[in-house]
Formats: sequence, C-alpha cells, structure tokens
Amino acid sequence: MSFQNTLSLSLDSPTHAICMVGMEMTLNISRCAPEKCETFTIRGSPRVLIHLSSTVIYGNDDAVVWRSINQSTEALVRMVSSSPTVDEDKVLVSYYCPDKESPTATAVLLLTGIEVSLEADMYRDGQLDMPSDKQAKKMWMWGLNGWGAILLVNCNPGATDQTEQSSIQEGPKEIQNLSQMTLTVEGPTSILQNYHLLLHTSEEEAKKARVYWSPKGASAYQLVLGPNKPVHILPTSERRGKETFYLEATEFPSASFSGLISFSVSLIEKAHSQSIPETPLYKDTVVFRVAPYIFMPSTQLPLEVYLCRELQLQGFVDTVVKLSEKSNLQVASVYEDPNRQGRWLQDEMAFCYTQAPHKTVSLILDTPRVSNLDDFPVKYSLTPGVGYLIQQTEDHRVGSLDSIGNLMVSPPVKAQGKDYPLGRILIGGSFYPSSEGRNMSKTLREFVYAQQVQAPVELFSDWLMTGHMDQFMCFVPVDARNDDQKAFRLLLASPSACFELFEQKEKEGYGDMTLFEDIETEQLHSNGREVKTISQILADKSLREQNTYVEKCISLNRTLLKKELGLVDKDIIMVPQLFCLEMLTNVPSDQQTSKLFARPYFPNMLQTIVLGKNLGIPKPFGPQIKGICCLEEKVCELLEPLGLKCTFIDDFDCYMTNMGDVCSSVIINRAPFAFKWWKMSP
Amino acid sequence: MSFQNTLSLSLDSPTHAICMVGMEMTLNISRCAPEKCETFTIRGSPRVLIHLSSTVIYGNDDAVVWRSINQSTEALVRMVSSSPTVDEDKVLVSYYCPDKESPTATAVLLLTGIEVSLEADMYRDGQLDMPSDKQAKKMWMWGLNGWGAILLVNCNPGATDQTEQSSIQEGPKEIQNLSQMTLTVEGPTSILQNYHLLLHTSEEEAKKARVYWSPKGASAYQLVLGPNKPVHILPTSERRGKETFYLEATEFPSASFSGLISFSVSLIEKAHSQSIPETPLYKDTVVFRVAPYIFMPSTQLPLEVYLCRELQLQGFVDTVVKLSEKSNLQVASVYEDPNRQGRWLQDEMAFCYTQAPHKTVSLILDTPRVSNLDDFPVKYSLTPGVGYLIQQTEDHRVGSLDSIGNLMVSPPVKAQGKDYPLGRILIGGSFYPSSEGRNMSKTLREFVYAQQVQAPVELFSDWLMTGHMDQFMCFVPVDARNDDQKAFRLLLASPSACFELFEQKEKEGYGDMTLFEDIETEQLHSNGREVKTISQILADKSLREQNTYVEKCISLNRTLLKKELGLVDKDIIMVPQLFCLEMLTNVPSDQQTSKLFARPYFPNMLQTIVLGKNLGIPKPFGPQIKGICCLEEKVCELLEPLGLKCTFIDDFDCYMTNMGDVCSSVIINRAPFAFKWWKMSP
Repeated sequence: MSFQNTLSLSLDSPTHAICMVGMEMTLNISRCAPEKCETFTIRGSPRVLIHLSSTVIYGNDDAVVWRSINQSTEALVRMVSSSPTVDEDKVLVSYYCPDKESPTATAVLLLTGIEVSLEADMYRDGQLDMPSDKQAKKMWMWGLNGWGAILLVNCNPGATDQTEQSSIQEGPKEIQNLSQMTLTVEGPTSILQNYHLLLHTSEEEAKKARVYWSPKGASAYQLVLGPNKPVHILPTSERRGKETFYLEATEFPSASFSGLISFSVSLIEKAHSQSIPETPLYKDTVVFRVAPYIFMPSTQLPLEVYLCRELQLQGFVDTVVKLSEKSNLQVASVYEDPNRQGRWLQDEMAFCYTQAPHKTVSLILDTPRVSNLDDFPVKYSLTPGVGYLIQQTEDHRVGSLDSIGNLMVSPPVKAQGKDYPLGRILIGGSFYPSSEGRNMSKTLREFVYAQQVQAPVELFSDWLMTGHMDQFMCFVPVDARNDDQKAFRLLLASPSACFELFEQKEKEGYGDMTLFEDIETEQLHSNGREVKTISQILADKSLREQNTYVEKCISLNRTLLKKELGLVDKDIIMVPQLFCLEMLTNVPSDQQTSKLFARPYFPNMLQTIVLGKNLGIPKPFGPQIKGICCLEEKVCELLEPLGLKCTFIDDFDCYMTNMGDVCSSVIINRAPFAFKWWKMSP
Repeated sequence: MSFQNTLSLSLDSPTHAICMVGMEMTLNISRCAPEKCETFTIRGSPRVLIHLSSTVIYGNDDAVVWRSINQSTEALVRMVSSSPTVDEDKVLVSYYCPDKESPTATAVLLLTGIEVSLEADMYRDGQLDMPSDKQAKKMWMWGLNGWGAILLVNCNPGATDQTEQSSIQEGPKEIQNLSQMTLTVEGPTSILQNYHLLLHTSEEEAKKARVYWSPKGASAYQLVLGPNKPVHILPTSERRGKETFYLEATEFPSASFSGLISFSVSLIEKAHSQSIPETPLYKDTVVFRVAPYIFMPSTQLPLEVYLCRELQLQGFVDTVVKLSEKSNLQVASVYEDPNRQGRWLQDEMAFCYTQAPHKTVSLILDTPRVSNLDDFPVKYSLTPGVGYLIQQTEDHRVGSLDSIGNLMVSPPVKAQGKDYPLGRILIGGSFYPSSEGRNMSKTLREFVYAQQVQAPVELFSDWLMTGHMDQFMCFVPVDARNDDQKAFRLLLASPSACFELFEQKEKEGYGDMTLFEDIETEQLHSNGREVKTISQILADKSLREQNTYVEKCISLNRTLLKKELGLVDKDIIMVPQLFCLEMLTNVPSDQQTSKLFARPYFPNMLQTIVLGKNLGIPKPFGPQIKGICCLEEKVCELLEPLGLKCTFIDDFDCYMTNMGDVCSSVIINRAPFAFKWWKMSP
C-alpha cells in the first residue's frame, strides 16, 4: 500500500490506497473499462469527495453520476476526514454497455484516510484554523486580507539567564501565553504504526525558536525543538487526535533573519529491512512570522514613568512626579547604574512592544554603550510583565549615535500615497560618510529596518553635540477636528523665531531685559553662560551666524520631514530656541576634534516631556517682561490654543550641564497602537 | 542667502533666495501686506512656477492672478530650470486697497535657480530620465509599471584579477557597456563656487559597486567611488552642464545584500571660517538595483555547447557533436581540469545571464567543490563576452549537493495564481534535517534565493546517489497548440511504467529477450551489471522492492512539482526507467555510510541532452524485440508525437561508470528569456 498521485483501477480485484486527508489523487477510469462499454457511473463513501470535470460528488452514499467514457477519462479523488478502520472508505466505478441496465463490470477502490496536519492561528483571530487549502499555510501574507500565524519573542527579563538546557527543558512559567500549534494525527492504528512522525524545522530556523510539548499525563513541559534540535521524533503508536505545542521565538527579525519560521510534520514510512531505506511520504508545513518590536511616538498615551531619582536634579524630579500625578501615572524609581557613564535611560533605552493576536508584551530595548556589563540594574526595576531585551552596540564613544536613544518615532502618517499606520522611525546621522561623521552602526540600523512595520527615515543630526534629534524636534498630540487634520503637531526649534521675538521686544522697549536673570552667577559660569540683555544678544554677530548655521541644518531636516512624513506647513510649529557652537565637551582627548557642534544656548524647550496633553517644558529662563518670561509666554501662545497644558520644569543644571542630557533620566512607557501591525503592508 | 523652505516678503527691500530646481518653497503673502489692502496679484518670471491654492501660474511674464488676502495666504514657488545669472528670476506680489487701480505696495522676491541633479535610466528604456518627482528616483519598483535603474555585475573573466587599485583606476575596457548616470550642475558660477559638490554612497554600498569618470579632456577613466571610497569631491568651479559617470556592481544580490545601491550628489556650503562648520544644503539621490543572475531551463533554445572531449567517451562526444551540428550549434572544447576530481562541468557550473536594458551578458556560475583552486581552466575556453563568476562552496564531499549543479530551472509557469515568467528554480535536498542528510549549504541556497526572480522550490533528491534531480526529471519543449497548453512537458522517471512495459512484452512472448545484450561482459561486470532477461527482471523481488521505494520518492516530488509549478497530469510524461539501490561508491572511507542510494539500473533516459526539439537520450540497451529496443521504441512513441526527435547516445560507460555522472562533461548555453526580469513582481 502506498500514497499515490495517480491510481489505476482493476476489474479483477479491489485497488487499495492510503489517502492523506486533503490530498488529491487522480483516478484513471478508462484504462480498465471493458470493451464496448461506453458509459460509467461513479460513487464514493461519505468521507470521499470526487471531482469529475466540473461535477462534485460528495457526502451521499447514493450520489452517483453517469458519464460517457473516452480515452482519458479521469476523476480526482480526495478524502475529507480520516477512516476509522483500514479500507473503510471506497469509490465504485461501474461500466455499462449500450442498452444494458445492469453494469458489465465494477471496479472497486478501497481507501484508508489518514490525517496528519499542523494547525495554527493563521487567520489571527485567536483560533487555531485548518484552512481548506493546505498550500496557504506555507505562505505568510501581510495586510487586511492577509494570513499567517505569529510568534512572540520571549523577552522575559530572566530569559537571557536560561542558557542551561536543564532550565529550558521545563519551559517558561507562563506557557499558556505562548503561541500554539496543534498536531492532528488520525487514522487506523494498524496503518499508523508503520510510520514515523517527525516534527521539524530547518537547522537555521531551529536557532530562532523553541517549541515545548507536554506528553499526555505529564504536567511538565519539555523542549522538543530549539537550537541544535531541529527534529523531534513523535511516536505514532499511541498517537490519536490533537496535541498542542507551545512556541516562542528567541530573536527578533534582523538583517540575517527574515522573521519567518516554518514548522513541518513529516510522515516517514519505516525502513522494511536493511535493503530498503525509510521513505518520506508526506509533509505538512505551517509558517509563523516573529512579531517585530514597535516603538511608540510621544503622541501615544503615557502608561508609566520610569525615573532615576538619585541624581541631584530636584527641580526636574519634582516636576516630573507632579506632572505624572496630574496625568494619573505611576512613577517607578530606577536606580542609577554605576557602570553607565551617567547618560543612559533615555539615551540607551526605549520602550517598545511586540504583539500577537493572543498577547501584547511591553518591553525595554536596551543598547548599552558600555561593553560587557555584568548585569543590568534596570531590569529589576521593571513592572512585572514588562520584557527586557539587550542589543549590544559597536560604537562606545561618548556622543555616539549608535544606540536606540538615537531614534524617534513619528505618529501615524501618510506620505507619497503610502500609509504608515504605526508611524515612521527617524534615525539621526551624518549627511554623507566621512571619518568624522557619527552614525548608527550598520548592525543596529539594519536591526531597526528589519522590523519592517515603521519604515525608517534617516535625518541629519550630526550637527548637534548630542547628535540626538530630540534637541530640535518633538511631536505633541492635538485633537483632530476632522479627518483632514492630523492628530499631532511637529514642534521644530527655530532660532529665527527667537530672534524675531527678541527684535519685537526690543522694538517695544524691552531691550535691557535679561536672559538668565534668576540664575546664580557661579551656576551660569560653570555652564559657560552669562547674563545678557536682549539687545546684547541681538547685537552678537557671532551668535547670529552660529544660529543661521543651525537654522539651515534644521531647515534641511524640515524639508526631509515634510516629504517623508507627508507634512504641510500648518502641521509644524516653530518654537523659539537659540543654539551656540562649541567643541565636544566631556570626552577623552583622543576623541576630541576641532569640529564645532551645536548645543542649546538656554534650556532647550524642544526637550519636552509629553504626557498626553500635559507638557513638561524645560524652563528657558528668558527675559522677564511685565513679570512673565517672554519665551514661556510665546510657547504658551503657540501651544495652549491646541489644548496643550504647559508646565515649565525649573532646573537649569539638568538641561545645561555637560551636554545638556542629564534630562535623559526618564523614560515613559506608552499605550500600544490600536492598529495591529499584521494588518499593514510594509 | 540660503535655501529656505519658507520665505517671508518685505515691502522695504527685495528678498533674495537661492532655489534648487524642483524644490518647493512656501511664500508667505499675508505677513507684509499693508493694512487695508484686501487683494493682491502675483506673477513670476518664465522659469518660475507658482501654485496658489488650485491655480498654477507658469511660463508667461504677464501671467498674473488676483486674489483676496486672508491671515494665512501662501503661495508655493518652484523653479523649473536654473538661472543664468544671480537674481535673474523673480516673483512680484502687488497689494491693492479696495477701489484703487494701482497697487499700494509691491514686494519683490529675487531668485537664483540652481540645478543639481543625478539622472539614470530609471524608466528602463535606455534613456537617462529626469522625473518630475524627485522622490521617485529614491525608490525602486518592480513590475510592468515599475521604475528604477539597473546595474550589471562585472563578470569579465579577468575582473577577479583586478585586485590592485592601479589597474582598476583605468576602468574596464568596455566602459561604454556600463550603466550610466549623469550629473547636471547648472547655475551662476559666482554662487556655485561657494559650495562643495560630493558624489557619494554609503560605506557599505561602496563595497558593492565601482563608479568611473573621465575628467573633461582626459581620455582615461578614473575610479571615483568604490570599495573604501564612498565619497568623491567634485570641484564646483569648472563645473557646468552634464557629466557622465559609468557604473558597475561587484557583487550579485545575496543574503546580506538586497541588491539596492543608492548614489547621491550633495551640495555643501563651504565653511565660512573656523567658527562655522560647512553646511549640507541639498541631496539628490538615485537608486539602482543590481541585476540578478537568471538560469535558463532546458526548454530555452540552445546557443552554444561546451564539451570536454578529453575523456574516453567517444560515443558520447561523437553523438553530442553530431546533434549540435544538426541544431546548427557551435561546439567549444573545454579541457579537463586536473584539479576537479573528474565530475565538474555540469555538476559544478551553470550558464546563466544577467540583464540591464542596455545590455545582456551570458555568464558561467562556477561552484567548485575543490577548495582553493589556483586557477580555473574553463574561463580561458569561454567565448569572448561570456562572463565568469566563482562562488565558493562549503561542503566539499563527493556526492555533495552544495553546488549549482544541484539545481534545475522550470520553464515559465503559473501556479497558485502567481506568474513565474522566468520559471522557478528547483533545488534538491533531503526531506528533513539529519546528520546524514545532504543539502545545499545555507550560503549557496540563500545566494540563489536572493536573486528573487525565479522563486526556488525545494525538492527531495537525497535518495539518489548523485543527489541530482536530472536523474529523475527533465523538461522538454513542445509546441503549444493554444494558450491553454503549456509549451513544455515534464519527463519523470517511472519504474512502474518500465515494469508494465516488460510485463506486456512477457505476455507477448518476449520474456527471454535480454537487457544489455550487446555490452561486453567485462564492461558489464565492472559496473556491477549482468545480462538479464525480461522474465528474470520481473521475477527479481528485491529489484521490485527497490523500485517501489524509488517510485514513492519520485511520486513525492511529483506531488510537489504539480503544486508548485501548477502542472496537471497531462503535462507529465512517465518515462520507463529502473533504478537499484547501492552504497555510495567512490568515496573516502570516512564518508561511507550504511545508507543505500538509488542509481540507474540501465543508462538513465532522463539524463537527456535537450537541444531544442533534438533530444540526445542515453541508449538504455534494453531488450531487442524484432530488432528494436523496446525501451527506445516506447520512449519514441511517447515523445515523437510531440514533435521531438530522439537520438540515442550509444555510450554505456559514460552513463554507468562511477555514479553515472561522467555525462556531466557538457554544458549548454541557451537563449535568455524574452521576458525582462524587472517587469515581474517577485
């Protein structure tokens, strides 16, 4: 007995065949037809489906169809479910001579249906589906009308410690949260015992996933597929019905990993003897895609604030806590990591999430620039259920752009006719390759690109001392009044808007009002600043030139952003902000160059903490006119009509010391997008 | 003067701006409008295009449009070509008070248009195109309505020797055959001299391509971009008009290289002084895709036959030469490569081609399984213009499947609703991963997949001693009588067809006729065969069992082929062929396993040389009945009605000695597909 594509009938004795449920066999009708017979009837048992040209015969023992025979009459035979016993199902072909009522002869095909099938949540509705078209399971399609099952990466903060086989063998604690795959094996035991069943993937794919299984009756789960374990032999003898496997990925998609992993069950006929090898007969394959990680733009609702309180930044810490309370947000304390050279939280980490139809997981993606850290204190501060993933960086220099902090995410946009329902990632870098230029490393950039769902845009940020785009741009949420309006505004730093404001104030007679009036002289000097009047600032030719340069750099990015995010001028708000050019500070002498970089002249109002409509804006310490800082007044005038509430964070040191990046000591977890990533077409 | 997105006008003095041709600027009309003025007119010089809400003003100095002013009246201004001198172009905005005929005031915008642009054959018509939408040049789209320029890999057999910079500096001999890219720089010299122009790509992309350029007046070409040379500074002073660059790729797409390479020209404002850095102002980018290599199925018209004549295979050589003459084909002689362990031409090499709109190049892809060959004799035998590319393999074992010989290509097919106009690649391998299973290495498999245009299908061929699919399948061309019919047939080896034929002959009384009648006993014995009668073969239970196993292996592939190539039963012809199972022969003892593999029992008729309708079929030496070999007769009966002409190659040793792969001493170059690869959607 064998599995055959094409079957011939015989009038002498019944033909026997094993039939995989869902597979089609061609039945040759004419070859054994008796001479002179010109017509035939065909009928099948209830589990058999017969296609005869355009007629389908199914489900009724008495269904029968009359046809005339020609040289190459064929029927397609398929079984829709397995047979309880051997030869239980059948197809009868009766041949008739002209003018005779009873058949001249009848050929019998005895069928034994076997079902071997893998099922997964391929329609992404939380159900394990068995599609009628087995080929569909081998494909993974994006989009609203797409299909294909989804795997989640295990980002449990403890997962990276599970390097020993023994602990993995037991399976993760919350195994019910993993993606599921069921194996159905049905058919007569006497037939099944002739076969091996193998659950397998390829050696390469096995490195990216783990599959757990609990033998019937056992409470523990065992690892059946995983790194160096691409094949698992399943005993066929005891096997009847459905069994569930639990799957997790070990890696996010990357330059060398598309994210697709196929699992197959293969039916192998056992070797009869030394002289005949085992014979593969059938394979059923289902493909999964590893869910990408998705970043959330500042316009998404905040969920949780992680704050490093240890630094001496009372003004900053107090205001952030107050703002969080106002927004009903919990503030988690993170302890300063002594290994991390000061700048870390926001600069080296980002909250993101990964999502499958059955589960959404928040996680922190950590890209430490200090190599070979022994441990990562932050992971012990995380709310239970929040994942943690580390990605080593290559460029460990101070002011390096090789970390996940060197990216922002836009809100959902539509540009050049294409929808980006999860926004686009913005990566900062240099304008062209050069030995001095700073960029994100190829590895990290490709890792970000490989997620596919938030197509990156590369911006020019290498002109800034920190190199980070948050020094000249910020997205804030607004209420869209109608569908044509966007639900956000882009704030861009504008030196010319600042000069214009100061010129106007000078014209109004306030030229003698001073910047930094309330800051202590010592504090100012240690940050290279001094008290200056509006008129002095306007008369400073060098400062003007420096800001003309900065304006051009921002203008270049503005052009890029308008094109790549489909923005129009009214989506952009210019926020008055001055910069100045200085040499890289706080770097080892071998990293020092003569190149000048821009840093904020006064606390940078673009480095706003966005907690919904509540904004925490660095207090600029601008000239007080009639008791009100004219910079604050201008910013409120720009933002409050949009429904935003401005709170100014009174902490000069926080924003001005070193590179002005001490403010990176907060990160915010936000609500995932309502839009599901698999419904888009990247 | 600077490049700005947004311009404000003034009534006091003209506003000056430099405008990149094709870039849009927003002109604020309302800000400087005199009080009480309610309407305005706007007009531009002929090179200026003005958008005012839905009205376009262009090309006529007198064109003017009347509008009322509101708070945020804006116009979009764009230049369509460069200005010959500074401030040569202008936009005039005149403001009118109600009931007055002459304007109250007029604001003047003086424009200097500069053009900096890269052009390539982005519409794939052999022309260098400048699209109106600059963004389009940054994308590469597949398909009939797609666009994007194409680069060819330099496969010149001498190219791999050009490792020294000096020889590359001079550029390849046939530089006019390279893809072209032109740079247009136009505008007043007094403006241009303030800028640097950089031609650049990224460091990663620079490794994959070379760009040559000939300075004006010079006859030699110099390398301007290439590995370790991602940026080239172009002097702006002498630069006016168009200049042509010549481009070639150094690598085909692979797992780590998508095939896309972007080139940019950047305009950088020179640093004014130590205190202000140089300022990037503008970037124009054009993307190329490196053309994939494409294999040709045996159904494509043959062009050239490469034959190794040195082996002692007179029957084979004579017949191939005769067949080639009959098909009007030139036969090139290739000399045996003493380093290559005997099996090579067809087993380790394949003809393919690569194609751009301006040129098609044939090439040999060589995957030698002997590591570190010093030189490759075959490349000196190639017809001038035929390229040569070497790809190292990883698995050097005898009987390894890690070479390009382990693949076939189907003719163009349509399967599961998808068109494969260049056919699909078929890769042989094992059914599931195991320590014994032989497969193509990940590197080579990914290299084949990365070409995208002939989506591979993986078949099960590990049951064969050679592991190569050409032992059980072959595509032959036939005339399609109508659009529904396919222009090919798939020949599949069928042990059962052979037994059926022999049974019929026995029934007819020819049971005593013998196989191998004319072969010398010694020759038979050295190949493990002996003269046998039809009845002896039919009575050999072990041979029957072995062929039942083979039949199942082929049947499995048949199912796969029907699904993945969209074949129906009538597209497949079963050719009688017997196999037997043996241990791997001719291998070092450490590669010996107890596993049995299939090899042809008599010369394998599936290993047919296809030269159009002329087939060179291994002579099977079957039982002679009435003076005619019944196997040959059967094959002719199957193939000749399809218009195919069968010539039997009388050379027992060639097909039976060792693994029966000495016949691999011929390769055939074939006609490229008429269909262009960039017109498909992979």
